[in-house]
Amino acid sequence: MSTSSQSYPMSGGDDQHSYIHNSSYQKAGIDGVQEKARQYILENLDLLNMNPNLSTFTIADFGCSIGPNTFHAIQYIIDIVKLKHLKESQEDSRVAPLEFQVYFNDLPNNDFNTLFRTQPPSSKQEYFSVGVPGSFYGRVLPRNSIHIGNTSFTTHWLSKVPEEVCDKNSLAWNKNYIHCNNLIEEVTEAYKVQFEKDMGVFLKARAEELVPGGLMITLGQCLPDGVAMYETWSGSKKIEMFNLPVYFPQVSELKGAIEQNKRFTIEMMEIVSHPLEAVQLSNNFITSMYRAILSTVIERHFGGSVVDELFRQFAKKLSEHPIDFEKCKKQMVYHIVLKRK
Amino acid sequence: MSTSSQSYPMSGGDDQHSYIHNSSYQKAGIDGVQEKARQYILENLDLLNMNPNLSTFTIADFGCSIGPNTFHAIQYIIDIVKLKHLKESQEDSRVAPLEFQVYFNDLPNNDFNTLFRTQPPSSKQEYFSVGVPGSFYGRVLPRNSIHIGNTSFTTHWLSKVPEEVCDKNSLAWNKNYIHCNNLIEEVTEAYKVQFEKDMGVFLKARAEELVPGGLMITLGQCLPDGVAMYETWSGSKKIEMFNLPVYFPQVSELKGAIEQNKRFTIEMMEIVSHPLEAVQLSNNFITSMYRAILSTVIERHFGGSVVDELFRQFAKKLSEHPIDFEKCKKQMVYHIVLKRK
Repeated sequence: MSTSSQSYPMSGGDDQHSYIHNSSYQKAGIDGVQEKARQYILENLDLLNMNPNLSTFTIADFGCSIGPNTFHAIQYIIDIVKLKHLKESQEDSRVAPLEFQVYFNDLPNNDFNTLFRTQPPSSKQEYFSVGVPGSFYGRVLPRNSIHIGNTSFTTHWLSKVPEEVCDKNSLAWNKNYIHCNNLIEEVTEAYKVQFEKDMGVFLKARAEELVPGGLMITLGQCLPDGVAMYETWSGSKKIEMFNLPVYFPQVSELKGAIEQNKRFTIEMMEIVSHPLEAVQLSNNFITSMYRAILSTVIERHFGGSVVDELFRQFAKKLSEHPIDFEKCKKQMVYHIVLKRK
Repeated sequence: MSTSSQSYPMSGGDDQHSYIHNSSYQKAGIDGVQEKARQYILENLDLLNMNPNLSTFTIADFGCSIGPNTFHAIQYIIDIVKLKHLKESQEDSRVAPLEFQVYFNDLPNNDFNTLFRTQPPSSKQEYFSVGVPGSFYGRVLPRNSIHIGNTSFTTHWLSKVPEEVCDKNSLAWNKNYIHCNNLIEEVTEAYKVQFEKDMGVFLKARAEELVPGGLMITLGQCLPDGVAMYETWSGSKKIEMFNLPVYFPQVSELKGAIEQNKRFTIEMMEIVSHPLEAVQLSNNFITSMYRAILSTVIERHFGGSVVDELFRQFAKKLSEHPIDFEKCKKQMVYHIVLKRK
């Protein structure tokens, strides 16, 4: 029942270029904030209290990709819910034993085979796994079926590139740039409008899927207010029609988009630096990370044959023009806990 | 939370050798009996009546493989539940609108990517799909979470080859035969014991997963009482340690195994001929069907390189010794509806 969308999952499989082996930057982001979410759940989750007969606790990871980060993000939630459940069982003998079911959601062309094959063996003792194919920009699960939703570093992927950005007759035509870069005001506006629309659709769907009192934990990247998206690559005619469906909102844009949805309360919102912000990442690390993230979208537009050469050139450019990490410090991590009214 | 098992899914992908393109024999079996199950559901399903607030109706297909048969089997269940729900809504205004969630279960190395990619587009409007990786010889879903379970042509695949059958020191050693064939009494007994044990595990798990009043629709192949499993291939030393984990029970064995489980009532049990029984199947059809079913287990034991040659020889043998379809008529289709007490 999901809406159609441009569908560019992370690189599948488990070879050297896969997302599995090139997602430690994202993992560091998850690690950096999870303690606060744990604390919040421990102190405030009242689902168990509300329904002592609850026998299955359901968790969904929206935009899970293929691990290992999703298993990691889910495990910390399960651990803390178990702890809370244990405490409540000790206090109230009516509390039923709890089973866990985890819904791993991503686009239908995500590599679910690898996801299932690489699940930690221990997870089989902890929860029942299911894969949910479908764009999270639309409903992917039944009404009132999820107790805790999670999403980590996903919603900067828009449902599509705003159409006018690829339209040569539009003021918002992005010429030979490949993403929102704040050099053309109309381009920025088009991306921003798309982001707001997508975030609206995302939250509307989640509000329907979560039970009342359910939590939605959202982790992502944003920019301080007034700070533009980074400088961009520009190039030849070949890339005139290529744009990335990616937008990093400024903090107030993000907050505004969330507040538009009246079915959630913002229980917690923190804006922090990425734990690896100060680390001088190697050129190899950066190249591999971008390849795992971008090769699907590049392949779709230019064909698979260009990927090797493109990232060879990317690595070469990086070595000639190393990244100024001081400049990159502007990008931040947001960590939000929403509660379904 | 599933138990470990030998894991040989049907051939994945969608090439000429895939299960997708070589499963019309099984589809004919499903088509042949579904009207009776429809009738039963229409007249007897009381879940909606029991719970007018039910908002999500859940269906699971255990051992779904990769389609299209699973989509077909699920669709007829959804159609009839929708019809019944519509009737009840007209009679009782308290009945809530219904959403459907379908759990597609198969072994973790089943090709879920192809399953998700080949879903009929119309299904996206009808139900929320999820994939459930895990052996159905064990729990794969939470307690009390499924309203109708279905399984088609699956439980003749045992969880494993009985160990003694591969043990040269055992009376039940199967020598140079490759499956249960009734030539060695101890082999037959070992397979039968394994079947009864597996069927017990299967039903115990389903009884926990189904809600009280839930239905389990089971379709499969069996033999009339007193009829032995078919003649077998025998061959060289190379196959001494190779046996197929397959057993077709006789009717009374099947019924006995079901009756062991006290949490189900047998609501319907019919034994019918397969609709294609009288059709003279082409050698090409037969070869392709067996290849789609058996290549995974053959590859695992002998390596992938033998598959082409083996089925070339199989086709050659078939053309030299055509199947006597009169003899094959002994195999029958059972169709059972169980109700969870």
